[in-house]
Amino acid sequence: MSAESSAGPHTVHPIARVVSPYREKFGIPRQPGLVPAARGHLQMLPGFDLPPAFEGLEGFSHLWVIFGFHACGGQWRSRVRPPRLGGNREVGVFASRSPFRPNGLGLSVLRFEGLEVAHGLRLHVSGLDLLDNTPVYDIKPYVPYVDSVPDALGGFASDRPDERLEVLFSAQASECLAKLPDAVGLADLISHTLALDPRPAYRQGESEARRYGMRLAEVDVRWRVHTGQVVVEEIVPVET
Amino acid sequence: MSAESSAGPHTVHPIARVVSPYREKFGIPRQPGLVPAARGHLQMLPGFDLPPAFEGLEGFSHLWVIFGFHACGGQWRSRVRPPRLGGNREVGVFASRSPFRPNGLGLSVLRFEGLEVAHGLRLHVSGLDLLDNTPVYDIKPYVPYVDSVPDALGGFASDRPDERLEVLFSAQASECLAKLPDAVGLADLISHTLALDPRPAYRQGESEARRYGMRLAEVDVRWRVHTGQVVVEEIVPVET
Repeated sequence: MSAESSAGPHTVHPIARVVSPYREKFGIPRQPGLVPAARGHLQMLPGFDLPPAFEGLEGFSHLWVIFGFHACGGQWRSRVRPPRLGGNREVGVFASRSPFRPNGLGLSVLRFEGLEVAHGLRLHVSGLDLLDNTPVYDIKPYVPYVDSVPDALGGFASDRPDERLEVLFSAQASECLAKLPDAVGLADLISHTLALDPRPAYRQGESEARRYGMRLAEVDVRWRVHTGQVVVEEIVPVET
Repeated sequence: MSAESSAGPHTVHPIARVVSPYREKFGIPRQPGLVPAARGHLQMLPGFDLPPAFEGLEGFSHLWVIFGFHACGGQWRSRVRPPRLGGNREVGVFASRSPFRPNGLGLSVLRFEGLEVAHGLRLHVSGLDLLDNTPVYDIKPYVPYVDSVPDALGGFASDRPDERLEVLFSAQASECLAKLPDAVGLADLISHTLALDPRPAYRQGESEARRYGMRLAEVDVRWRVHTGQVVVEEIVPVET
């Protein structure tokens, strides 16, 4: 970019792609760090996969990822209904982290779990709140003396959402889980993701009859919510 | 953006322009928040200047700005020499906040000082580390429970740079300052900016004879460094 072109459009290209257990939008944690078991990696794309470009990163525990909300259709709205406000109160889009924003750029801080060079160049991360296949436009180290402002005022999102539902597994679900590779990690991912109660806020008072489903990693998970408990009724491996 | 296009280039458009006292690259603080006196605003561009799009932002004390390093020529390098390492040690570009990065996107947290609607829509900010006229691609609220990770490990940039030089003004400089509007604010901006010692690290052992200059707000400032003190020798209002 030159100074002259600063007023005009700017084209960015993906430098990496997110590999995440979240294969659809429904159920993704609404912020990073809420589900430490949500592990995945950033697969660097050709031209950006040179180990020297990452030298020194091993001293940092967290990364910033600037990414594209690629599954949100490109529409933006001046006012949005954040889930934190129960989905029924509007705020301005620039007072929110909503995906429905001009330029469709997202920002997440992820825990950096290490670099691997056996399959191209991968940056392993946890605490993911990103959809599988998300395009990444930049990766920066988290610099705590600059980026951490613990006494900042957080407006309508001041408090960490601490409420968690209890998550129970049916016999069928437990048996299916036990047969899968990395059963423990998968159980951890399912229980921590569902404990956040992914149901839309306006549905949270609904009858217990309603069944929900989401794809997580290589399984389809189906559950109901009974008197404040999540019951995972069924886990079905995805045919691949 | 659609899911199909996520592998390809993505075009972003400026939504705002930075109005900053930093009119040239030399001398800009190397991170946001180091010079609280560095005040300016984000001038929202037509189409993005609707007050409803900012409703709720008044409850937040800090903003994220995703911007373009528009004066850096668009070249990126896999290895860079961060000023924090004295400018003589290389690290990977993704382990740094260097402007010479793929896609040329920057990220700064700024203190939000309030919204004004008298001259289009302006978001007043302080702690600027941005060049005047920088294109802004997104503005997000700083959400402390997500964005603040005080115990993160900061690699080679773990410590806040606390060293400051003493700044003194010559008689000429003081007299010139006194005649200008907002003399106190300008003196504060000059002294806090120069206290960070903007000289390139490799010059910091050089002879006291060398004179430096930078444009700050509406003045040209010229100074020397004598035995660890900055002496502002001359302040000249810019002809406009």
